[in-house]
Amino acid sequence: MANALYAQSGGVTAVINATACGLIETARLHPTEIQKVFAGHNGILGILEEDLIDTSFETPEAIAALKYTPGGAFGSCRYKLKGIAENRTEYERLLNIFAAYDIRYFFYNGGGDSQDTVHKVAEFAKLQNYSLTCIGIPKTIDNDLPFTDNCPGFGSVAKYVAISTLEASLDVASMASSSTKVFIFEVMGRHAGWIAAAAGLVGKTPNDPPHLILFPEIPFHEDNFCQRVQETVAKAGYCVVVASEGIRDQSGKFLAESGLTDAFGHSQLGGVAPQLAQMVKQKLGLKYHWAVADYLQRSARHIASRVDLEQSYALGKAAVEYALQGQNAIMPIIVRDSQEPYQWHIDVIPLSKVANQENKMPKHFIREDGYGITNVCREYIAPLIAGEAYPPYQNGLPQYVKLLNRRATKGRI
Amino acid sequence: MANALYAQSGGVTAVINATACGLIETARLHPTEIQKVFAGHNGILGILEEDLIDTSFETPEAIAALKYTPGGAFGSCRYKLKGIAENRTEYERLLNIFAAYDIRYFFYNGGGDSQDTVHKVAEFAKLQNYSLTCIGIPKTIDNDLPFTDNCPGFGSVAKYVAISTLEASLDVASMASSSTKVFIFEVMGRHAGWIAAAAGLVGKTPNDPPHLILFPEIPFHEDNFCQRVQETVAKAGYCVVVASEGIRDQSGKFLAESGLTDAFGHSQLGGVAPQLAQMVKQKLGLKYHWAVADYLQRSARHIASRVDLEQSYALGKAAVEYALQGQNAIMPIIVRDSQEPYQWHIDVIPLSKVANQENKMPKHFIREDGYGITNVCREYIAPLIAGEAYPPYQNGLPQYVKLLNRRATKGRI
Repeated sequence: MANALYAQSGGVTAVINATACGLIETARLHPTEIQKVFAGHNGILGILEEDLIDTSFETPEAIAALKYTPGGAFGSCRYKLKGIAENRTEYERLLNIFAAYDIRYFFYNGGGDSQDTVHKVAEFAKLQNYSLTCIGIPKTIDNDLPFTDNCPGFGSVAKYVAISTLEASLDVASMASSSTKVFIFEVMGRHAGWIAAAAGLVGKTPNDPPHLILFPEIPFHEDNFCQRVQETVAKAGYCVVVASEGIRDQSGKFLAESGLTDAFGHSQLGGVAPQLAQMVKQKLGLKYHWAVADYLQRSARHIASRVDLEQSYALGKAAVEYALQGQNAIMPIIVRDSQEPYQWHIDVIPLSKVANQENKMPKHFIREDGYGITNVCREYIAPLIAGEAYPPYQNGLPQYVKLLNRRATKGRI
Repeated sequence: MANALYAQSGGVTAVINATACGLIETARLHPTEIQKVFAGHNGILGILEEDLIDTSFETPEAIAALKYTPGGAFGSCRYKLKGIAENRTEYERLLNIFAAYDIRYFFYNGGGDSQDTVHKVAEFAKLQNYSLTCIGIPKTIDNDLPFTDNCPGFGSVAKYVAISTLEASLDVASMASSSTKVFIFEVMGRHAGWIAAAAGLVGKTPNDPPHLILFPEIPFHEDNFCQRVQETVAKAGYCVVVASEGIRDQSGKFLAESGLTDAFGHSQLGGVAPQLAQMVKQKLGLKYHWAVADYLQRSARHIASRVDLEQSYALGKAAVEYALQGQNAIMPIIVRDSQEPYQWHIDVIPLSKVANQENKMPKHFIREDGYGITNVCREYIAPLIAGEAYPPYQNGLPQYVKLLNRRATKGRI
């Protein structure tokens, strides 16, 4: 008899709980191998503090409801374990906790840094001769993990961004003759333009909105941008811009950090959209509006992608199945089998291969002028936003579950 | 035989096209009374320019699809006709166009200013002995028209804002222990706090998110706000703020216009959320994130309220029916018959009563501390967001219709 421990790591998504759902439901099918699934409260920080949630108190209905509840049901955190040499005590602490709670399966659900962490934990356990099966489960809206066809969480953000762009563009188009001429929509993506790229699914030609997409991969050029906006307004009557938060100027400086100061002279951080809006106003004198989706985009479970949801669930399920097969220090990934119809299956790769790699947008996914996506990119992203998977509603609001999150009795170590 | 003319006015909504759908479908049931429905291209500006759309070219399927397509399908505009005494030529021009196209029914779909305009047109037609039936059809996300139980367009924005607040709050709550402590969500509402109030449907107690709602009706007090944020973070671990774009300081100045200047010393317009975020950072030193929904909220047809959709359609239908009954210079309104279950019917009021009135939030709808809504407010708004009415999807995107918008042959006058 042994227990499992699951923890969520880094920024949460609309479907990370679907992975938790797949994992816990599958573990519950194997009660002789896995007695209990514990969860770290607020991720690995909770584990280090011996703050563990005992998920066995949750009803099957509550666990099933995780499939349609956004956010991180057990809490997540931003915390990166240092190397073993640098902070050995933290790794020892982890293994002591694991031993105290009979934890023999460790599932860590996160992005690139988290895969690195779980890999190190696996190595340390081996060093210490502590029998532990470690599985990293991918999750990141940034879509920057290597090997996997895509990252769970990305498809849903992509769908949200594409739909929001489509809807706002219809609004702007209706009013442009006498009102707003330029609409700027800021989306996430500090290092890679995947999320902004999803807006490109909306327009079929460069004359359709979104007219201009700004990628972190392409250095921003103010004059050229303003010229393109002006040309677009002249031709189409209005211009819709989708901007990655992480665009940088020619010197590599984030636009979001440039220039603005408040009444006290402090520089203002954040907000590429208002920066671009100021340029449009000052250089072109055009009426603008801007939106910043921020957390709305990564929590928008109400319009999650069905494909993303199914993949997220499947990865949680596969993680348990691989663990029970004795696979250690691996990460389940999504493999694309065919494009049309989109077919996929789950495979694994060793965690040693994953660590410290970032999957940026390939050059041939960005249009030559730097302001849009190519057909190859469109074909890659399109299937990931396919299908809807609406949560249940009551009185007009989604019925998201709030777990009991009862803590395991503390003080075992 | 006569024709009808329909025009959309002011900011568009997720459901204004549902009103157009109800109107055109009902007119098509009465071909002996109404031969054609023309539509002003970009609203009344198109009418003045003799730029009319002949909707008879649209298939029944295309007209039906208006029910689930956001934006203004014929184009809208921001343009307020002056008084008859001030600009008589514009009114004469309108009547000349009406006469040239045999228009005997004029339907104007907009907010308070538009109701004033259609009222003046009705009066001028009477003065000129031109037989014309004028109907104003309410529409505004601001929910500030008098007499009607609520305004078409509001319920859908309210639903979007409530759901977005719920979802983002789950995200923030998951991460607060090690990341963002304060999340600020800016929504529309320049003079009235109805839209921000809708976020209050999410939390059941002042301890639930959204913890603080900022209304234009309540003068903003920086110190008190910062204190409340700090207390909330201390108690709940995080703080979710929903701010109306139109909040003003004690001197009556819009917060969105205060203080920020760019590198050239120009003051920056727009964005209450980043302003509030700066306060949180400077006074409290707390990690923040902010979102500005802007057009996303009023075009979010993907999550429109079913009640709002049904009312919007019903008003378009009723407008034609009242017109054919010979009612002139009236506006159909929504009357609330019962609260639970929410039941309503359509009635009319004379346009003379509507003009130049604004329906702000009543005092007893705002909690005594000024940062939330009361139960009375909750009971008023709750039924307006009830029910979902999803558009059809293809390849992951809503299938919004693009009308032919074939123009009537110009040059009749």
